[in-house]
Amino acid sequence: MSVDGHIIAGGAGFIAQTLIRRLLLAGDSVLVIDNLSRGQEVFLKDFINSDRFDFKVADCSDESAVEVAIKSVRSPETFNRIWHLAANSDIPAGIANPGIDLKDTFLTTFALLKLAKARNIANFHFASSSAIYGDLGDRAVDEDIGPLRPISNYGAMKLASEAQIRAAVESFLPRADIFRFPNVIGVPATHGVIVDFVRKLKSTPDQLVVLGNGTQRKPYLHADDLVDAMIFIANTARDPFNVFNIGPRDQGVTVQFIAEAVRDRVAPHCEIVYGEGDRGWVGDVPRFKYSTDRIAALGWTPRLGSREAVVRAVDEVARQEGFG
Amino acid sequence: MSVDGHIIAGGAGFIAQTLIRRLLLAGDSVLVIDNLSRGQEVFLKDFINSDRFDFKVADCSDESAVEVAIKSVRSPETFNRIWHLAANSDIPAGIANPGIDLKDTFLTTFALLKLAKARNIANFHFASSSAIYGDLGDRAVDEDIGPLRPISNYGAMKLASEAQIRAAVESFLPRADIFRFPNVIGVPATHGVIVDFVRKLKSTPDQLVVLGNGTQRKPYLHADDLVDAMIFIANTARDPFNVFNIGPRDQGVTVQFIAEAVRDRVAPHCEIVYGEGDRGWVGDVPRFKYSTDRIAALGWTPRLGSREAVVRAVDEVARQEGFG
Repeated sequence: MSVDGHIIAGGAGFIAQTLIRRLLLAGDSVLVIDNLSRGQEVFLKDFINSDRFDFKVADCSDESAVEVAIKSVRSPETFNRIWHLAANSDIPAGIANPGIDLKDTFLTTFALLKLAKARNIANFHFASSSAIYGDLGDRAVDEDIGPLRPISNYGAMKLASEAQIRAAVESFLPRADIFRFPNVIGVPATHGVIVDFVRKLKSTPDQLVVLGNGTQRKPYLHADDLVDAMIFIANTARDPFNVFNIGPRDQGVTVQFIAEAVRDRVAPHCEIVYGEGDRGWVGDVPRFKYSTDRIAALGWTPRLGSREAVVRAVDEVARQEGFG
Repeated sequence: MSVDGHIIAGGAGFIAQTLIRRLLLAGDSVLVIDNLSRGQEVFLKDFINSDRFDFKVADCSDESAVEVAIKSVRSPETFNRIWHLAANSDIPAGIANPGIDLKDTFLTTFALLKLAKARNIANFHFASSSAIYGDLGDRAVDEDIGPLRPISNYGAMKLASEAQIRAAVESFLPRADIFRFPNVIGVPATHGVIVDFVRKLKSTPDQLVVLGNGTQRKPYLHADDLVDAMIFIANTARDPFNVFNIGPRDQGVTVQFIAEAVRDRVAPHCEIVYGEGDRGWVGDVPRFKYSTDRIAALGWTPRLGSREAVVRAVDEVARQEGFG
């Protein structure tokens, strides 16, 4: 993807940091647009001195604000790819107030598609989620499975975004990739089970209280592997509309495994106290068999399985939170 | 469904007229809310004198306007069902300007779900569409099929609405029905292939120019059958979240069949001139095998097949347009 110009919507977030590093290393130009509602400018500190990097504060659901941001950079006409990573990643917040998911997760998609049309940007790469599937029980979840029954507003607005992108491909957009993310871990960690556990132990080192009974099993992917897969798909897939599950090849690890990994790294003598039930919160899916056969057939496999990814991320997050 | 109170969003439209008639006959109360962007007040003239009927002009995507409308009727606390029929039914208009489908088809769903939550309205009945499926080729389309790849913004925003409703059922809504409509015909006709053909022949009686080559085959259902199915599902289905294809048991009729039925009824000596290709417009699906096994298993079958529905609707539309 050399000599590409990338707009990264939601580019001050966790996953974007790894993506930006890769794209700049490849010699490309990057414009990050982020409203800093959850993203943090400090995540961009390594890039800010690059003359191929720009950062503009704008709300990606506001098409005209995004247009102003684009026009303010040196060569706005060179952008040929939009990476849409903007979303409300706080699922319980979106259940309490669906307007958050509407604006941050769906209306961003809507505005960015209008931008792609207005600027003839041919490639749209979208961070979707396994949350679009809902609770499919013990079925192996491949990309073509039905029915799709998201149980959170977050998942609903990711599915809504996919639908709008699909329709855009039919009418004007030459190329779209849909990346269905699993649980992604790594640093800079801002939310999710690992950072929750580490921070709990930071304030109460003797006890780790876990929501649910710890038997929830989910696949985890490290952000480095995720970004590697995204770039691989962007370079390799050939259809106008490509949908890929991205995840480890295994069936994941339990919450108990994660709790114990955090305990072992951070507070070896703490007691782990489990709750009841196999769901941590409304909108949470207790188990998930994620099929990654399609991306494997395209030629990509992750370097880390769920166990290795968790152990590495626990160490990274512990360092981030001051456990040297 | 006796002693029910119904809010019908988009109630001044084509299908609502038949639904309102049925609900009032059953002794229920009905409040129609419509912004009259496509609905017509004249469609409500038979009901306006009933003391169990109210009509308020408000935009269903504007939650506070809807709330004002509800508060202005005699017993606003008696409503226990929302029928969401509000949508942009003009598919090409939505492809030219996706903002129309966003506001009229999706943001209406969003606002009406907030209303259901705020008012503890337990039943949400949603007019979805076969357009959520996209072009699945020769596969039989049942309710659980995947992948869902809508090719119009209309279909995308119907799918987005379904997703948001599904998430609402997970978090607060006791009951939702998703009705996936096929092509629905009957009167008062405002759009669609039959009224298009009749009006063309009204202005140029010698020639009927057809978009596409006439081989597109789709299932058609008469509005009377559709509304009968909707009420049947509302009374009979028992899950918190019910999804039903509604349609005839056959595989439909071709555009050619419809063109000839209109010719025979309206202008027997006209010439029919076909275009090229099997799609009439961007976002149109050329053929469709619609499975209605689920609703048949629930105990409902339509009175009219596609052929009978078309012949009857052609006669009704011809009368509506002045062909006595």
